[in-house]
Amino acid sequence: MTGTDEELKEAAEMDHHHFVKTLSAFRFFGPHLLKRVERSRAYYYSLPSSHHKLIREFDDNLKKVEECILHNNDLIASIIKHSAPDIFNGEHACELNGTVGSSNGTDLNNSHAVGPREKIGPFAFTNTEMDKVRSALKQFVRDWSVEGKPERDICYQFVLNDVLELFNPKKVNPANVNILVPGAGLGRLAWELAHLGYTCQGNEWSLYMLIPAYFILNTCKQVNEYKLYPWIGQFCNNMSREDQITPVHFPDVCPADLPANVQFSMAAGDFVEIYTDPNTWDCIATVFFIDTAHNILSYLDTIWRILKPGGYWINFGPLLYHFSDIPGEDSLELSYTELRLAIKRLGFEIVREKSNIQCGYTQNSSSMLSYNYNCVYGLFRKPFITTISPTTETNVTKLMSTLNTTTSTINDME
Amino acid sequence: MTGTDEELKEAAEMDHHHFVKTLSAFRFFGPHLLKRVERSRAYYYSLPSSHHKLIREFDDNLKKVEECILHNNDLIASIIKHSAPDIFNGEHACELNGTVGSSNGTDLNNSHAVGPREKIGPFAFTNTEMDKVRSALKQFVRDWSVEGKPERDICYQFVLNDVLELFNPKKVNPANVNILVPGAGLGRLAWELAHLGYTCQGNEWSLYMLIPAYFILNTCKQVNEYKLYPWIGQFCNNMSREDQITPVHFPDVCPADLPANVQFSMAAGDFVEIYTDPNTWDCIATVFFIDTAHNILSYLDTIWRILKPGGYWINFGPLLYHFSDIPGEDSLELSYTELRLAIKRLGFEIVREKSNIQCGYTQNSSSMLSYNYNCVYGLFRKPFITTISPTTETNVTKLMSTLNTTTSTINDME
Repeated sequence: MTGTDEELKEAAEMDHHHFVKTLSAFRFFGPHLLKRVERSRAYYYSLPSSHHKLIREFDDNLKKVEECILHNNDLIASIIKHSAPDIFNGEHACELNGTVGSSNGTDLNNSHAVGPREKIGPFAFTNTEMDKVRSALKQFVRDWSVEGKPERDICYQFVLNDVLELFNPKKVNPANVNILVPGAGLGRLAWELAHLGYTCQGNEWSLYMLIPAYFILNTCKQVNEYKLYPWIGQFCNNMSREDQITPVHFPDVCPADLPANVQFSMAAGDFVEIYTDPNTWDCIATVFFIDTAHNILSYLDTIWRILKPGGYWINFGPLLYHFSDIPGEDSLELSYTELRLAIKRLGFEIVREKSNIQCGYTQNSSSMLSYNYNCVYGLFRKPFITTISPTTETNVTKLMSTLNTTTSTINDME
Repeated sequence: MTGTDEELKEAAEMDHHHFVKTLSAFRFFGPHLLKRVERSRAYYYSLPSSHHKLIREFDDNLKKVEECILHNNDLIASIIKHSAPDIFNGEHACELNGTVGSSNGTDLNNSHAVGPREKIGPFAFTNTEMDKVRSALKQFVRDWSVEGKPERDICYQFVLNDVLELFNPKKVNPANVNILVPGAGLGRLAWELAHLGYTCQGNEWSLYMLIPAYFILNTCKQVNEYKLYPWIGQFCNNMSREDQITPVHFPDVCPADLPANVQFSMAAGDFVEIYTDPNTWDCIATVFFIDTAHNILSYLDTIWRILKPGGYWINFGPLLYHFSDIPGEDSLELSYTELRLAIKRLGFEIVREKSNIQCGYTQNSSSMLSYNYNCVYGLFRKPFITTISPTTETNVTKLMSTLNTTTSTINDME
C-alpha cells in the first residue's frame, strides 16, 4: 500500500468514525434530555413540602415533557433509519442497525452521565454535540414549517427576488442557470430555487445538517407528515409550560413537488475543498453562511474563482464567526466594513447593499428571550473582465473606476 | 477553639479567598483580552500575502483595540485601588497592593494561557470568570450612562412609577418608607429611589457587582468623569471596527447628588440568608433578579416573610434561571404561569401584571446580534391579614376570595 493509499484509508476511517459518532449523537439526544428532566424532578423532590404545595403540578408537567421527548426520539429514529443508510452509498448501514433504538423509557435511561461528558457505546458527548442536534431539529421549523415562514420570508426572499430579476425565466431558460447554495442546511433555499426551475446545488459540510436534510428531501412525501417538539429542551424563559411542549408539523410543502427534469442536488463536503473548478456558476447564494469559515477570505477566494465572469454572489446574514473564541480554533473576525473592502479589493462590483435587516434564526416566537440578528444583505458581481490579478491593487482600482455602478446604501470606505 | 469558631474562621477564609480571587479576575481581564488580540494577530500573519492585501488595515485596527484595552485596564486599576480597600473594612487591603498593576503592555502580557484556564498568581481563570468581569463593566453602561437610559427607562420606570403612586410623597414622608432592592447590581435603581427621598437599601451578592458598585457610589464625584470601552471584547457581529472601540462616559448623574439625610445603603450578601426579620419592608423591588436563585420559591418565601402586611413587591424581568444547565448546580425552572400560581398560593394579591415587555440587558445597540428579553412585570401585595399559614390551601383560597381585586392582564390559571 502506498503512502497515498494509507492516507486515503486513514481519511476514510476518520469520515466513518465521524459519521457513526454523529448518528450516535442524534440517538443519544433523547436519553440526554430525559436525564435533564430527571435532574429537575430529583431537585423538586428535595424541596420542602411547603414548596411542593406551591407548585403541585410540577411533576405532572415534567411527565408531559418526557412524553414529547419520547416522541422526538421516535422521529429521530425514523430520520436515521430512513435516510442514513443511503448516505455515503450505504457503506455505514451496518452501524446504523445498532444505533437506532426504540423509545422505551427504561431503555433510553440506560446511559449514565460521566462528568461533563455523557457516553453512548464507544462515544462520549459534550453539551456542544447535544446543542448541534438541538439546532438541527430546530432547522425543521426554520426551513420546512409554516412557523418558520416569517424567518424565511426575510432572508430567502432577498435571494429569490434577485435571482428572478437577474435570471428572468421569461428571458432565459432557468435550467441553464447554475446556482450554488453553500451552507444549505436542510435545503429549503436550494429547493425553492429548483422549484422555480433553476439548476441548483446545495452544499453542506455538517453531518448534523446532512442527515436530516436527506430525510426531508428524500423521505417526506406529504405535507405535515411529521410532528416535532422543537422547544422541548428549553426549560427557561417560558411563559407557560405549554410553550415548551408546543408541537410543530412539517413539511409545509411536499419536498418532492419539483418541476420535471429539474436539476437539484445536495453535495456533502467543505465548500473550499470541493469547489475548485473556475468560472462554473452563474450565481452563488450564501445565507447565514460566510461567518462559518475559519478564514472568511478563503470563502471569498472560492466564490470569486468559481463564479462565471458576470456571475452574481448574493449574501445575507450577520458576522457571528462560528469559530470565534473556540479553544484551539483559528478565527479571522472582520467587521462588515473590513469585509466589504476585501470584497471590493478582490474585484467584485457591489451592485446593491442593505444593512440592519432584523432576522431571527430558528427563533422560538413564544420565548421570553429572543436572539435578533441585524443582518447585512449584498448583491455582488464578478465583472466580465477576468484577466486581472485580483490582488494587484492598480488593476482593481482601474476595474472599480470602469465598473462603478455601485448603488450602495452603506458609505464607501475607499 | 470551638467547632463554631473553626467554622467561622473557615467561612472567613473562604470569603477572603473569594474576594482576592475576584479582584485578581478584574486585574487579569486586560491581559486576557490582550492575549485574545495577540491570537488574532498571529492568525492574520499566518495568512497568505494575497489576503494581507485584502485587509491591510487589520493590524492597525488591532492596535487601536489594544489601546482601548489598556485604557480599560487603567480604569479597572482605579476601581480596585479606590474602592476595594474599604470593602470588608479594609481587611484585605494588603492583597490589593499586589493585585493592582500598571497598564504597561509588556507587564500585562506576562501571564500565559494554560489550556482552557489562564493563571494569575495563585489563581486560574476560566472564560466564565472573564465573562463576569465583562458583564460588570457593561453594567456601567446600563446603570450609569446616557447610553443605558433606554434600558433603564423600560424596566426601572415601572418600579419608580409604582412607588410614587403607592407611597405618594405628597401624602407620606418618603423617609418613612423602607424599600429593598435585591440584586441591586451597580445600584442605580436603589439610588433613584433614594434620590426621591425614600429610605432604600440595595442588596447584592456578587463581588463582581459589589466592587464596581462601591466605586461608582463612593468614588465618582463628577458627571462623565470616567471613560470606558464597554464593547472592546466583542470581536464578532461588528458593522465597523469603530463599533468595537466606541467609548462610553459615566456617570451620567453625580451619584453623590442625594437629598440631605436620606437613608441609602448597599448590603452585601445572599438575599435569603441576610434578610430574615419578618414584616420589615414596605416595598421590595426585584428587577432582573428572581431568576438568579437555585430555588426561586426560596426568594418568594423571603419576600413574603420580610414584607410588612400591606407591603408591595414589584417584579420585572425574564426567567433565564442563572443556574440552569450549569453542571453540579441545582435549578428549579418554573414557567411564568407556574410561578404566578405559586405567588398566589403563597398568599400574594396580584394587583396588576403585564407581559411581553421587550427590554435589552447591557445591550450594545450597534451590534449585529441583540438579545431581547420579553419580560413580565407584576405588582403584588402581601395582604393585611397575616395570621394565615401560607401553605394551608384552604386559608389561601379563602384569602384570595376575600381580597379578589386582581386586575390581571394575564389569564388566571386557578
